[in-house]
Amino acid sequence: LEVLNQRLLPGQLRYERVGGVERAWRAIRDMEVRGAPAIALLGCLSLAVELAEGAAPSEDVGALEEFVGQKLGFLVSARPTAANLGREAERLRTFVRQRVETPGVTPQQLRESIIEYIEGLLEKDRKDNWNIGEHGANDILGRVPGVSPVFPQGLCGGLSRGGRCLCRGVPDVSRVSPGVVRALHQRGSLSRVFCTETRPYNQGSRLSALELRHDGVPVTIIADSAAAAAMSTPDPVLSLAVVVGADRVAANGDVANKIGTFQLAVAARHMGIPFYVAAPSTTCDPTLASGRLIPIEERPGTELTHLGDVLLADPDVDVWNPAFDVTPHDLITGGIITEWGVFAPSEVCRAL
Amino acid sequence: LEVLNQRLLPGQLRYERVGGVERAWRAIRDMEVRGAPAIALLGCLSLAVELAEGAAPSEDVGALEEFVGQKLGFLVSARPTAANLGREAERLRTFVRQRVETPGVTPQQLRESIIEYIEGLLEKDRKDNWNIGEHGANDILGRVPGVSPVFPQGLCGGLSRGGRCLCRGVPDVSRVSPGVVRALHQRGSLSRVFCTETRPYNQGSRLSALELRHDGVPVTIIADSAAAAAMSTPDPVLSLAVVVGADRVAANGDVANKIGTFQLAVAARHMGIPFYVAAPSTTCDPTLASGRLIPIEERPGTELTHLGDVLLADPDVDVWNPAFDVTPHDLITGGIITEWGVFAPSEVCRAL
Repeated sequence: LEVLNQRLLPGQLRYERVGGVERAWRAIRDMEVRGAPAIALLGCLSLAVELAEGAAPSEDVGALEEFVGQKLGFLVSARPTAANLGREAERLRTFVRQRVETPGVTPQQLRESIIEYIEGLLEKDRKDNWNIGEHGANDILGRVPGVSPVFPQGLCGGLSRGGRCLCRGVPDVSRVSPGVVRALHQRGSLSRVFCTETRPYNQGSRLSALELRHDGVPVTIIADSAAAAAMSTPDPVLSLAVVVGADRVAANGDVANKIGTFQLAVAARHMGIPFYVAAPSTTCDPTLASGRLIPIEERPGTELTHLGDVLLADPDVDVWNPAFDVTPHDLITGGIITEWGVFAPSEVCRAL
Repeated sequence: LEVLNQRLLPGQLRYERVGGVERAWRAIRDMEVRGAPAIALLGCLSLAVELAEGAAPSEDVGALEEFVGQKLGFLVSARPTAANLGREAERLRTFVRQRVETPGVTPQQLRESIIEYIEGLLEKDRKDNWNIGEHGANDILGRVPGVSPVFPQGLCGGLSRGGRCLCRGVPDVSRVSPGVVRALHQRGSLSRVFCTETRPYNQGSRLSALELRHDGVPVTIIADSAAAAAMSTPDPVLSLAVVVGADRVAANGDVANKIGTFQLAVAARHMGIPFYVAAPSTTCDPTLASGRLIPIEERPGTELTHLGDVLLADPDVDVWNPAFDVTPHDLITGGIITEWGVFAPSEVCRAL
């Protein structure tokens, strides 16, 4: 298992070997890997590595169950707010419990079934991302041949996708809009991608652009404020689509995503350009009736007043730094792309 | 004559004494003062300082004319592309020529008339800015009582306005949208100003926000991508207006301004918020039929990939970094605020 150390980007492209749970814990705590889904997979995979290398007790299934439980508890302690890791850990515990209760199961069988289960998580993630890319590309090409999408990525900054991408071993289900872009590129249908900088954390210029370039996609960075200008540039060769990610989709199809998404959607509507959201089905939250109910995290103002040692503003100035905004469903004119297909925003939760 | 050293901002607020033309030349060349109109005024004022302090030859008017001509030529050499300084120097030369040709004029009279002329430039600039502020505030308050404008500043980064502001002595006619904001504040009609960061050069967070705070205006910095979210925040207390500057206004009312202005205008239209452009009449260029004819400067990509020593993106990535965009006249729903009043975009050039 190797992960790309995101802390060294964009200056340095270094993969780190993750030999077990302790190294994964450090990678998660020190934010070498970011993005809730990537963190969850890295944690589980590091446990599978230990199991595969024979680190676990082999005398009886109870000891093995305890070993797994302890490792999971330790992993979760690296970033207690990373909900996905906590959820995956809980599911894995339940799975182990059920297996332990299966009459006659041997420690060896239990160990193998856990490894298989964890490998299945990775495989599912890969397949879901691939499906999202394919469904998105099909839909976009049916509408606008020869596409040049403008997109910011979702909040989760993990530069990571299983196997197909910069990161070997750790996919990131939440950053799927690059998957759609990549699928378009592989079909030879993409002339250029404009990638927004995505202030204040610059995930677009630091991570998404790097990832897409690595895959050979022709990518151009623009300031967030230049997106509307890029959409309106009169170029008869280019047909445009806007593809963004999602952090959460409400029952009515409203979408919470990285700050700036709403503004892109408004500009796309004004210019008559189809606006797509790419999101795995797990992003849909049918318990939220509308986007207005999605709580918006406000991040520290220092993200806008400081950058490394550089002072960008009077440090005492008032700052409003919301991490997300909510795009109303009626602005999502293209549709919501999931691993099951492309849906109208108002139908996506019900359909899934 | 003192000028605020913009190079030290936002970390340090230091005024520098400008005792004459040589010091002004350095301030201009080293970009301690930025913004074409501010540069022009600083240059002329530094000459007036020398004349007032008796540095000029007093034996005959010809020698004095030559002295002034040489000083102006030297000043223009500091930044040869600063068009306003060149234009003001030319006008001043013409003025001196006419005075020299007046029968019986003494060197003393000539000297005093030049000082008076230059002080008049400063006075006119102050008055124009004040008028723009008053006209803008009147119009906005007639439409939306209790305003909270969102605005980015124009391109010229001069942190400077005659007398009323951070900079003593050097006004900046091109950055007038803060003038409107200040006028609203002075009438007690302004609850808050959202000031966009204005990437990639961060004039909004570095300069405008500092300037407004200095004047006691309640200012909040937001990322450029958060402007639409700020406009849509449901707060019954706030009525919003958007006020931006302008670099150039075409005959049909299209406006070129700092990149991101078009996107703000689209968002304001979507939200039904009046969108104003504040610009001195000299910004209007009736020789340009439409905004499509305005050439858009493209700035180096390094502005988006580097910040001081911090690497923000893969340094080899492709970047599109337009300095301006063009806002079509039909999106300027509030009007164009000039020192002569507020005009509909399609009428402004003809009316002036």
